[in-house]
Amino acid sequence: MTDLRVGIVGYGMTGRAHCYGYRVAPMIRKLPVTPTVTVMSGRDGVAVAAAAASYGVPETVTDWRELVRRTDVDVVDICTPPGTHAEIAHAAAAAGKAVICEKPLAVSYAQAASAMRAVSAAGVPNAVGFNYRRLPAVALMHRMISDGAIGSVRLWRAQWLSDEFTDPATPFDWRFDREMGGTTIADLGSHLIDLALWMVGEITDVCAQSQTFIAERPRFDGGVTQVGLADVTVDDASSALIRFGSGARGTVEVARSVVRRPCDFTVEVDGSEGTLYFDYGRLNELWYGSAGSDPGRYGLTRIRAEHRSHPYAADWWPIGQGVGYGSSFANQVADLFEGWPDAPWTPDFAQGAAVQAVCEAMDRSAASGRWVATAEVTSD
Amino acid sequence: MTDLRVGIVGYGMTGRAHCYGYRVAPMIRKLPVTPTVTVMSGRDGVAVAAAAASYGVPETVTDWRELVRRTDVDVVDICTPPGTHAEIAHAAAAAGKAVICEKPLAVSYAQAASAMRAVSAAGVPNAVGFNYRRLPAVALMHRMISDGAIGSVRLWRAQWLSDEFTDPATPFDWRFDREMGGTTIADLGSHLIDLALWMVGEITDVCAQSQTFIAERPRFDGGVTQVGLADVTVDDASSALIRFGSGARGTVEVARSVVRRPCDFTVEVDGSEGTLYFDYGRLNELWYGSAGSDPGRYGLTRIRAEHRSHPYAADWWPIGQGVGYGSSFANQVADLFEGWPDAPWTPDFAQGAAVQAVCEAMDRSAASGRWVATAEVTSD
Amino acid sequence: MTDLRVGIVGYGMTGRAHCYGYRVAPMIRKLPVTPTVTVMSGRDGVAVAAAAASYGVPETVTDWRELVRRTDVDVVDICTPPGTHAEIAHAAAAAGKAVICEKPLAVSYAQAASAMRAVSAAGVPNAVGFNYRRLPAVALMHRMISDGAIGSVRLWRAQWLSDEFTDPATPFDWRFDREMGGTTIADLGSHLIDLALWMVGEITDVCAQSQTFIAERPRFDGGVTQVGLADVTVDDASSALIRFGSGARGTVEVARSVVRRPCDFTVEVDGSEGTLYFDYGRLNELWYGSAGSDPGRYGLTRIRAEHRSHPYAADWWPIGQGVGYGSSFANQVADLFEGWPDAPWTPDFAQGAAVQAVCEAMDRSAASGRWVATAEVTSD
Amino acid sequence: MTDLRVGIVGYGMTGRAHCYGYRVAPMIRKLPVTPTVTVMSGRDGVAVAAAAASYGVPETVTDWRELVRRTDVDVVDICTPPGTHAEIAHAAAAAGKAVICEKPLAVSYAQAASAMRAVSAAGVPNAVGFNYRRLPAVALMHRMISDGAIGSVRLWRAQWLSDEFTDPATPFDWRFDREMGGTTIADLGSHLIDLALWMVGEITDVCAQSQTFIAERPRFDGGVTQVGLADVTVDDASSALIRFGSGARGTVEVARSVVRRPCDFTVEVDGSEGTLYFDYGRLNELWYGSAGSDPGRYGLTRIRAEHRSHPYAADWWPIGQGVGYGSSFANQVADLFEGWPDAPWTPDFAQGAAVQAVCEAMDRSAASGRWVATAEVTSD
Repeated sequence: MTDLRVGIVGYGMTGRAHCYGYRVAPMIRKLPVTPTVTVMSGRDGVAVAAAAASYGVPETVTDWRELVRRTDVDVVDICTPPGTHAEIAHAAAAAGKAVICEKPLAVSYAQAASAMRAVSAAGVPNAVGFNYRRLPAVALMHRMISDGAIGSVRLWRAQWLSDEFTDPATPFDWRFDREMGGTTIADLGSHLIDLALWMVGEITDVCAQSQTFIAERPRFDGGVTQVGLADVTVDDASSALIRFGSGARGTVEVARSVVRRPCDFTVEVDGSEGTLYFDYGRLNELWYGSAGSDPGRYGLTRIRAEHRSHPYAADWWPIGQGVGYGSSFANQVADLFEGWPDAPWTPDFAQGAAVQAVCEAMDRSAASGRWVATAEVTSD
Repeated sequence: MTDLRVGIVGYGMTGRAHCYGYRVAPMIRKLPVTPTVTVMSGRDGVAVAAAAASYGVPETVTDWRELVRRTDVDVVDICTPPGTHAEIAHAAAAAGKAVICEKPLAVSYAQAASAMRAVSAAGVPNAVGFNYRRLPAVALMHRMISDGAIGSVRLWRAQWLSDEFTDPATPFDWRFDREMGGTTIADLGSHLIDLALWMVGEITDVCAQSQTFIAERPRFDGGVTQVGLADVTVDDASSALIRFGSGARGTVEVARSVVRRPCDFTVEVDGSEGTLYFDYGRLNELWYGSAGSDPGRYGLTRIRAEHRSHPYAADWWPIGQGVGYGSSFANQVADLFEGWPDAPWTPDFAQGAAVQAVCEAMDRSAASGRWVATAEVTSD
Repeated sequence: MTDLRVGIVGYGMTGRAHCYGYRVAPMIRKLPVTPTVTVMSGRDGVAVAAAAASYGVPETVTDWRELVRRTDVDVVDICTPPGTHAEIAHAAAAAGKAVICEKPLAVSYAQAASAMRAVSAAGVPNAVGFNYRRLPAVALMHRMISDGAIGSVRLWRAQWLSDEFTDPATPFDWRFDREMGGTTIADLGSHLIDLALWMVGEITDVCAQSQTFIAERPRFDGGVTQVGLADVTVDDASSALIRFGSGARGTVEVARSVVRRPCDFTVEVDGSEGTLYFDYGRLNELWYGSAGSDPGRYGLTRIRAEHRSHPYAADWWPIGQGVGYGSSFANQVADLFEGWPDAPWTPDFAQGAAVQAVCEAMDRSAASGRWVATAEVTSD
Repeated sequence: MTDLRVGIVGYGMTGRAHCYGYRVAPMIRKLPVTPTVTVMSGRDGVAVAAAAASYGVPETVTDWRELVRRTDVDVVDICTPPGTHAEIAHAAAAAGKAVICEKPLAVSYAQAASAMRAVSAAGVPNAVGFNYRRLPAVALMHRMISDGAIGSVRLWRAQWLSDEFTDPATPFDWRFDREMGGTTIADLGSHLIDLALWMVGEITDVCAQSQTFIAERPRFDGGVTQVGLADVTVDDASSALIRFGSGARGTVEVARSVVRRPCDFTVEVDGSEGTLYFDYGRLNELWYGSAGSDPGRYGLTRIRAEHRSHPYAADWWPIGQGVGYGSSFANQVADLFEGWPDAPWTPDFAQGAAVQAVCEAMDRSAASGRWVATAEVTSD
């Protein structure tokens, strides 16, 4: 079996999770190629070398441009901060590489659309890392909606509550800088919006509010000495009303300011015939109620989303054993490379840009205090 | 001990719940008077007589005006559809009676404000039946916020999901008629807005959307023969973004269109130092996390809101036994009459009108597609 | 409608809960008589008078024998410590009164059997207060088993975990005295064994272990001055293996030594075709899984045991609102008096004695370290 | 870094899980060697080749003896049915290999003790695959008990409910054969007993009951044609009372006959100062209550057992993301090889034999109907 050579740009937690995905994918799915991480880049040579060693990546470079140009790299996997995604994607597309880009695709719709045009023009496979789609329970939710288990969708709601930004002593870094990290809307919200578009369809209009509760954070020089305060240019928390093209309505809320909530995202989709609810804190479960069920058994069923008939489940463990976060990355790799090189990748940069358009519409709405049509963003 | 004579206007589920409250209150709290339901009114003489008999109310009348005028009635308790509240409250105030009015106080802010002015002018005790405040876990939530357990409030979110309107075959009745039942915003949302105002403070601005998924419903003549369709003039589902005067932000959603969700309301308040979460489906519990707790015990605690030190708890059963919906009505009666006749009642019509102003702002916002200041409503 | 006059012996928490039951029952069920508490007894005249006043009971006596003899008492309701039950029941039966006795029926099988013979000989209605049967979810569990929803029962397990005895500083009182309070097996276990016999059928053999972790407790003179230590003669915790006559097997555990568990009892019944699970901490829910359900929906359903079709539910509130502990007592009164005077009461003293036989078999087994047949106890 | 060559005997689900462990371990922990699966054995050459290919194992043999003898194998990892463990372990020890044996160590204490003596005599590293110890929440439970978070242990209870054997149509295979699969006590119970010994200490006496609800199962010739029925020689469900050397008491129940329960094991440990509860269905959580906590916050805390300070957590993902079953195998490999070659392995065969002694005592007790001391088994 042929190795397909992957170069990963970035070596932080995301790069690590992607490495895990490449390592595990061949165990859970029969693939026509073996995607293998051969090189990893990072500006700090010592740090990237240490990371690569622990992830089992044989080679490192300190300039991502070098990684992108290498002839022994078939796939460029972008795991850097969002503000750098578009530029790297452009270069990778220009070099004729397949491109996988971690979400969000960019920090603005303009960047995202530009990246989308670049990969499209280059004709290279392209994908965005909306990994939560690849959880069994989430994929089952999507499949059940598609199969009509809840009838026509009326309401969608999602929340992502985290405590990442609760401590005022957390030093300023790129996550607090809109140009590099993107907003909380883009960082957390992009996952939720991706799920909304995937499960319910086009979002036409949004109305949002954003708030930054801690407006300045200590800036450290070299990570040691505080050198004043830096302005936080991203939102701690945002929420929005949503209108779908189908007539369904929704709400979404993202917050990195909620104490003792580590990464609690929930999604509910309510249809004319049923209700589906997912809580990432219990990621192997999906809650379901059907209007057609026996009223004497009124309630929601805690579906153990690990039955062999469920998406991804047969690739993993017997029912009841449970998978974790990592499984979403292994499933992502398996999904992308299962049909290599012919099957189109999904979600691709077009989807990434569509998500970005909604995020930017939310951002504009929060700034302007009015409903904003997604089309306003995409037609700019 | 003196009996205090209560006349209840209306004999449906709300009247029944209030009767339960009067019956049980003296068992759980030492009161200076014994509030006793002596008469109940309803237009259908046979039906009100049957209801009164089952609730243990000795007398009935078919004209609420008669009930209000009676000299052997000290307190008028209004349990009719919302569209009738204001008129009855006016009459009761004019007759010098203390007035308890089920929520929402009215179907418009104008009506609510008018009722508020009437009771104020008459100088009669007045209260609105926001009974959920009187649940131990909800009252504990309020107390903990007041005591600083979560620091300064940043985010508030509440949802009320019910299936009351999911079946298209449900015949048209007053609940679908905005002039009589008020909107879903007013019906369900008023409880949530009351909690928001109580726990977090003034709401200055809202932006909302509303949707009616089932626009027409069968109209029945005498409950038997269908005579065409009637237009539904209320919302099935609404959601809103909220700005508090304190700078806190919020979201609220109400829906009567969610399959297999009977009456699932949840409220979360996130502060700079902690998180509080309440799920009415498990009403004897309150979830709490504190930023100051040991990180090695990271998580939320399921407080059993029945400890003797908790609000209302010592009046009821030993910890772990649990109270139900009914307890909120008994606690309401106990709270109102504990300090009779001197202690002011709370929440009163002023609070009911303040809630109504927010509900109406939401309604106007949904209609106009823009943010609406509560002050726009109250200054009309 | 005729009043049926009830005299309650004892005025503690149990007497209070029973008073609540009499007060509320007529509101929730149409009864041929109105059971009314007319007198309450207690040795401490001041205390019983205060309690009676708060419960709305007009008269008190300090000698239960006087209460039992009164011609204006139709029903004697025994709410005293278990060690006194049998003697009072004998006297009440001898006086021709209907007798309701709080569980456990006695502190020994011999006492229980004697009480059973007394009421039988006197031909008076008799009932034991196994109130948890009257919760909607528990009654629904029973009905579903009877209706075949889980096929033939294979396994039954129940636990009752409480923290009542966790604090070594809790002074000695009658609860720690086997002759007066009965064992933890009898106190908590009797409820669970009642449910087992009711749902699954005869228990033929048990094997148990018991442990007293805190063997001595401070004794107080007049509740103020400590006067040494008293030996605890009851178990803190016990567990048992169970064999049913049907071939089903079971386990039961009771403990008053579990920190931060207030009154957490759970019951699960596993059959050839399904599973039912109840957790009293969430008493309005019943969990159910059926072998015949769609495997793609694999899991347990959280039945909201408040649907109008469920036992007791239509008597109370709309679905989703929830009932509490008190409802079990109101339902008990309603059940007992609904068919007065002709319908036999259930569970009666015979059931109370059958439960006691199992409890005593457990006690003997724990003492002897061997399996004990229930028949050994009943044939003594 | 040196590769350490592992040969896996057996290629079923367990072999697969162990392969996953070897593949992932180097990513999560810095190890002095890289344990690498070089060969896998299985009697069916085609099947083992297919499995090895999918697990990424380069070589296969059809005779485990050959695998054990190979000079290019350093570690023998036994993943075959329990009835074969002891013989393979003997051979591996004789060949001077380090031995990892999946649980249970054997199907009898005699076999287990013999295997223990063999590895001891050979002086080879030896470990038993009690993988659930390696879950963060379970390891945290152990650490908290050791650290005194619950005071002295009083009660321990564990249940393992599965539906593996619920369908009477499931054909007879080695799992139903006591000589090959061991009992349900040994299969599921060994995990629970391991946790008990690890967390609470020595078990001195047990009293058990066992039941086989489906006594015969269809036997298939070549998996296709039914050729009569085979007797099931294992238990479907067993339960036991337990006495610990410390004076603590316990109960344990294992069942493979519970509908719609996939693999629901729970463990609770109750101490004089606190309570700990783990539910494998939600494996990233640990519930904790402390007698010393503020009574006004009475309840159990849902600890998210993913905090960086928790065992294993820092090796994996950010808090809130969650790990799955697979993580226990990667952690196991990391733990075993982290200190290679000097650090002793734990749990070792001595622990495996100690667990087996308790399982066998339970088995004997169920057969004899009396309490059985573990010492009776070990002194045979």
